[in-house]
Amino acid sequence: MLLCCLCKSRESVLNKQHIWLFFFIAVNTVSVNGIWPMPQKISSSIERYCVKPQSFEFQYTNLSVVKPGCSVLDAAFKRYFKLIFPDLLKDPGERQSGYDRPLVKPFTLQVGVSEGDCDGYPSESSRESYRLSVASGQAVLRAETVWGALRGLESFSQLVYQDGYGAHYINKTEIEDFPRFAFRGLLLDTSRHYLPVNVILETLDAMSYTKLNVFHWHIVDDPSFPYQSKFFPDLSNKGAFHPMTHVYTQTDVRRVIEHARLRGIRVVPEFDSPGHTQSWGKGQPDLLTPCYRGPVPSGTFGPVNPTLRSSYTFMAKLFKEVTSVFPDSFLHLGGDEVDFTCWKSNPDVRSFMKQKGFGTDFYKLEALYVENIVNITSALNRTSIVWQDVFDYHEKIPKDAVVEIWKGLPPAYAQELSSITKAGHRALLSAPWYINHIRYGQDWRDSYMVKPLNFSGTEEQKKLVIGGEVCMWGEYVDATNLSPRLWPRACAAAERLWSDEEQTLSTDAALPRLTDFRCRLLRRGIRAEPLDVGYCPHEFQGV
Amino acid sequence: MLLCCLCKSRESVLNKQHIWLFFFIAVNTVSVNGIWPMPQKISSSIERYCVKPQSFEFQYTNLSVVKPGCSVLDAAFKRYFKLIFPDLLKDPGERQSGYDRPLVKPFTLQVGVSEGDCDGYPSESSRESYRLSVASGQAVLRAETVWGALRGLESFSQLVYQDGYGAHYINKTEIEDFPRFAFRGLLLDTSRHYLPVNVILETLDAMSYTKLNVFHWHIVDDPSFPYQSKFFPDLSNKGAFHPMTHVYTQTDVRRVIEHARLRGIRVVPEFDSPGHTQSWGKGQPDLLTPCYRGPVPSGTFGPVNPTLRSSYTFMAKLFKEVTSVFPDSFLHLGGDEVDFTCWKSNPDVRSFMKQKGFGTDFYKLEALYVENIVNITSALNRTSIVWQDVFDYHEKIPKDAVVEIWKGLPPAYAQELSSITKAGHRALLSAPWYINHIRYGQDWRDSYMVKPLNFSGTEEQKKLVIGGEVCMWGEYVDATNLSPRLWPRACAAAERLWSDEEQTLSTDAALPRLTDFRCRLLRRGIRAEPLDVGYCPHEFQGV
Repeated sequence: MLLCCLCKSRESVLNKQHIWLFFFIAVNTVSVNGIWPMPQKISSSIERYCVKPQSFEFQYTNLSVVKPGCSVLDAAFKRYFKLIFPDLLKDPGERQSGYDRPLVKPFTLQVGVSEGDCDGYPSESSRESYRLSVASGQAVLRAETVWGALRGLESFSQLVYQDGYGAHYINKTEIEDFPRFAFRGLLLDTSRHYLPVNVILETLDAMSYTKLNVFHWHIVDDPSFPYQSKFFPDLSNKGAFHPMTHVYTQTDVRRVIEHARLRGIRVVPEFDSPGHTQSWGKGQPDLLTPCYRGPVPSGTFGPVNPTLRSSYTFMAKLFKEVTSVFPDSFLHLGGDEVDFTCWKSNPDVRSFMKQKGFGTDFYKLEALYVENIVNITSALNRTSIVWQDVFDYHEKIPKDAVVEIWKGLPPAYAQELSSITKAGHRALLSAPWYINHIRYGQDWRDSYMVKPLNFSGTEEQKKLVIGGEVCMWGEYVDATNLSPRLWPRACAAAERLWSDEEQTLSTDAALPRLTDFRCRLLRRGIRAEPLDVGYCPHEFQGV
Repeated sequence: MLLCCLCKSRESVLNKQHIWLFFFIAVNTVSVNGIWPMPQKISSSIERYCVKPQSFEFQYTNLSVVKPGCSVLDAAFKRYFKLIFPDLLKDPGERQSGYDRPLVKPFTLQVGVSEGDCDGYPSESSRESYRLSVASGQAVLRAETVWGALRGLESFSQLVYQDGYGAHYINKTEIEDFPRFAFRGLLLDTSRHYLPVNVILETLDAMSYTKLNVFHWHIVDDPSFPYQSKFFPDLSNKGAFHPMTHVYTQTDVRRVIEHARLRGIRVVPEFDSPGHTQSWGKGQPDLLTPCYRGPVPSGTFGPVNPTLRSSYTFMAKLFKEVTSVFPDSFLHLGGDEVDFTCWKSNPDVRSFMKQKGFGTDFYKLEALYVENIVNITSALNRTSIVWQDVFDYHEKIPKDAVVEIWKGLPPAYAQELSSITKAGHRALLSAPWYINHIRYGQDWRDSYMVKPLNFSGTEEQKKLVIGGEVCMWGEYVDATNLSPRLWPRACAAAERLWSDEEQTLSTDAALPRLTDFRCRLLRRGIRAEPLDVGYCPHEFQGV
């Protein structure tokens, strides 16, 4: 079977002088090393089939509800054709002439989807399960939704491998797959450094390769406000690093959302308040609390001023815009790290506290603020996500709010998971996956060893853990180093959140699979850094 | 003076609608924040002059020994013109028409060099001092050598800055500059991962921007042997990761050396032995010591076999080739981390030890090997550099050998500097600059705070410290992440090795200068990672 994919023009090159090269390549033939993240059930045999671009086709099955014209799958077929045959554009002569087409056995990937949601958005309840069966000349991919079909296409593309001559093969395989958690996120921070749109789009591409499905866009924060608001253009005019070059226009945002949608990725924006809002204050006078030094304003500002009606009017209008732009049913409200120093210094805030009977308990003031914001969000028909601080410091948050855990090491976050789910909230885990924190060596192993459900609680509580997030905060990260810091390090959490934990307990067993997957990322143009000494057949840049 | 560089077509654009933008830019006008690394003496005034590409010229002074036709400077003028005017190619219309040439006051950089070494190579004794004087319409750069002129051109290019409209300025400035240390190196490891030639060339570019002047090419090691030898082609045919794609041909090596030469950078190759040679054994039978398990060979191999005459014949022939390819007077012999386990296991080695009367002291055997290799190197008219292990474990190394320190933390390497220089050897410091070891946050501060001469010793001893090296070992580094790991982190050591220590003691004072320099690196296409929260006017990729 080895030579079946060699076309005649290549065989003729194999004269005696090339035999040493042939043996080298034969020994080093790349074989399929599994899929990342590992499917729930996979069986494969050594029987393998040729796959050639000249005779490869995607087709919809007869029973498929979804047909040609489906935006998500039509675009995916085009994309995956290039991912499966990465050399294609480098060899246009062969492709165009199609001289050996009649000699080549066709290979068809039949795709069947039982629900028609081609123009929708993926959501928390989207089913991503799929079944894939690869046999001679044909593979069949079945999924309930187009989002599941996308996951199956990705797995299919990872099953195809090349030998040393560039010929493509796929082994006989059966897969039955579904995600362990519905929410598998990645946070990018575009406030501490601006990330050009193309960098975000490339990150979405790589997310889809590793089956991450939520882009948590931490779009604004203290350092800059790059979101160009329709209602409040001064927020970015005055709060972005530069009002023209370092902003996300409405078109940019739509482009990101559509790019994500086509890959089955949700975009959850975060507009963190009342803290982390220094940049907001530049374009929105009276929004932030003026801090005082003794009896006089110091000229600096603190968190959003929770005592003014205008603050809530502003937030309601901003969030109305935000929810009209971002279709996802989740909205991240932040709520972390509120520093009370400035509130305490301000006489108007202090008299407001007195009037409300809060005494000196500023947590009550914070709770009042958050309650108002959550109500605004609910009225806009959105589910709130809040950082754990909101849960830790006050109880009156609505049951349907999702709480995201970001603090502490293993025992601490397990305890927090336990408390949050006991209180009936859905929980998201990101504490162990702050991978902007780098460490020399194979630090992906730490991410991989996380056991998200390893906390004390009932089965019902465990079900409330909807997933987790890899966080890449931006203090030291921008377009220059984002990709190699993210990839393949983020893949560890991606497998933990998708795959069966019992089958993926060993980092040593994962290493060769991840090493292979990293080479595949390189082949797809993702600047994924090496895991250890070694090489990829196709290095980044020019080999 | 602010508007002097604005041409009429631009002024007409300044209608009322643009006034807010104008004020933004005026406030944010980039001003010159000094040169990296800091010159020995610099004085500048707020008086500034326009510099326009249409009317900018390099000229040789009348008294210059070096004239047009000088390979090093002719190429440098072309290169620096583009570095000084990075937008030029984006605005070809304006450049070609030259419509306002008559209106523009010319600016000339007069370059005078007093020694004619245009076709030579930089060496340890090359003088790199220069004087630069910038006045209205003219700057004068004087240097003894073309290498000094290159350093001055780099400083000149860093003095030129742009305002928010892209107009170029330079301030009235006087510089008198020279390096503190003659040897300011950077080690790249092309064995643990292969680095494509274009990645090496780009690194040489960035080295020249920060005035590093030695590329220590750790070209081969245990994992792979990418150097394609003329005499021993099997070394890379069998020892490289791939014999075609992961090798450096003779042409590649010549290209690297010439690219480096034109930037005043020496290329010092390292062929580390007798340890770190696993990959050599694949293409050179009988070179490595067969290890034994009890009375039988285990199938594995240890360091170069020091008991066989053939080992030395091979090394002599290889080094003869290497010195014919690499013109530098230094050759790095390695000599680090020799593991005696295999030698101890081998009965032939043991009987050789007995015959030589070495008892069980394998350091004596190692010393015998190193002595032979150093003699081969001396016979080829090259100065040996060895890692400190060679000095630590035996005394009989020639006085002119340079010892490179790689082990330990501050007290340890200071002690080693003291011992090496007391023994009369020249010393190179790299221990504190293993910057492949990354740490979260601003770890460049550690590199910056190193005081290379802070050890106990006489003035004569201190003079024996010829410099230092930044080392970027390749365990976790390849083309995907080399640039952001190197830059700007390596700049810290570059300033320490060039500048006056008393003027550059504070990392806080250095931070804004380094932040500016990092933006300049980005502008020149170097993927230098951010130092802190913030932005550059021109981000990497597309802003």
